[in-house]
Amino acid sequence: MISSSPDAPIGVFDSGLGGLTVLKSCLEAMPNERFVYLGDTARTPYGSKAHETICRYAIDCTEFLASHDVKFLVVACNTVSAHAISEIQSRYDCPIVSTVEPAVDAALKASKTGRIGVIGTRATIVSKVYQKALRAKNPSVEVVAKACPLFVPFVEEGIVEGEIIDQVVELYLSEMRGIDTLILGCTHYPLLSKPLAKYLGPDVALVTCSDTMAAVVRERLAQDQLATSQATQSVEYFASDAADRFDALATQLVGLTNVRSRHIDL
Amino acid sequence: MISSSPDAPIGVFDSGLGGLTVLKSCLEAMPNERFVYLGDTARTPYGSKAHETICRYAIDCTEFLASHDVKFLVVACNTVSAHAISEIQSRYDCPIVSTVEPAVDAALKASKTGRIGVIGTRATIVSKVYQKALRAKNPSVEVVAKACPLFVPFVEEGIVEGEIIDQVVELYLSEMRGIDTLILGCTHYPLLSKPLAKYLGPDVALVTCSDTMAAVVRERLAQDQLATSQATQSVEYFASDAADRFDALATQLVGLTNVRSRHIDL
Repeated sequence: MISSSPDAPIGVFDSGLGGLTVLKSCLEAMPNERFVYLGDTARTPYGSKAHETICRYAIDCTEFLASHDVKFLVVACNTVSAHAISEIQSRYDCPIVSTVEPAVDAALKASKTGRIGVIGTRATIVSKVYQKALRAKNPSVEVVAKACPLFVPFVEEGIVEGEIIDQVVELYLSEMRGIDTLILGCTHYPLLSKPLAKYLGPDVALVTCSDTMAAVVRERLAQDQLATSQATQSVEYFASDAADRFDALATQLVGLTNVRSRHIDL
Repeated sequence: MISSSPDAPIGVFDSGLGGLTVLKSCLEAMPNERFVYLGDTARTPYGSKAHETICRYAIDCTEFLASHDVKFLVVACNTVSAHAISEIQSRYDCPIVSTVEPAVDAALKASKTGRIGVIGTRATIVSKVYQKALRAKNPSVEVVAKACPLFVPFVEEGIVEGEIIDQVVELYLSEMRGIDTLILGCTHYPLLSKPLAKYLGPDVALVTCSDTMAAVVRERLAQDQLATSQATQSVEYFASDAADRFDALATQLVGLTNVRSRHIDL
């Protein structure tokens, strides 16, 4: 059930670990809220899979979070945001924030030349959700979009700098010359900020959704009178693959502390 | 149900596309048999996931093939072979061939120095199934094992040669100096034979399980009087993610023709 109580938790989910970058921003922005995070690590990655598969898995995740009586749904996965938001909204009457709008707003604010790059999983780029959202808000922007399907496996292997990742960055980003803003359209990609910034140089702004999403959630909670009156923050973590591996990577990749997840079958 | 009729099909499954290299060898070795191939492309890859998750998914795949009344089960996935064979055998009374024994026999036959390398997914290498099987048959062999988790994503992206894959090969195989035989302990890896051979040189034998597995299946069918009397070969393909992408990659990566898979939910 979706809850309308201010003291209910905020549900956050991702296909795996990437969404933890969004959770981290939310934890910083909302120091009193309760959170339930679900990573569908058994079926990760979603980004190379078909629309129908992504929708089916997204509904499973939402159902799980709804069973925890969440008051607000944070879709911390660009692939799900690109494919399954209307599917989720048609089934659950719940305030929801996806990755797309916050990143688009931040990119339009950051860009001076109007030439904006977008990178993401194959499923995100093929959906054209970023391209359409950018042009809907400013028809004069020029968008260069590129799927970067190898970035997620590299991040999940903990390879986030060095010669090989520099070459993979070059492989994918060589078409991006001339942009002044790049949307990192996958919640894993902030972990590659260093090699991306090194390749693109200091004049290109890197836009991630995480901080903007957290700000949007906080605003919406206040607007809807759903902000908690509790004193202390808490997080419950759930993972569909092994809990110990999730906990180790959450600490190692994202720098979260005290992560003790529980395994669930989806 | 598992069938005991010689005219029943042979079931082959993998976490995705890699097992098609085994199917291809089976098609060449058994020109009259019927085959049912299942690729669990929606939940691929298995190789970075936990033992319990791999077992659960392997049982789902076996159940699906059993519902097609197969007479023989070919586990064309090293990760499943390393983790779930006893789990499958405890539930299904069916002749079964995994990837491990055929590859181990071929490696021991090929090696002159007794220094053998094994590469595979993280789950396969961590299970130590190859290391144990080699030493059980010849306690004097020296085994160098290495998990290569980025190889599968590269293959699935169609990147099987070039400078970047050469560097990834070097990253993983630098410890393999001195071996005279390398077991490619993942059904995707035959598609990387070229860069692997280039790095290791002509004195290292590359051992894949596919041809040996196909020979073992043919022998076992004859022994058990399960070889078909039918005249023509056929294959039914099933995929848990989108059928069109499966068909395209089966043709592009493995060189199979007339692939028309059907989508199923697992």
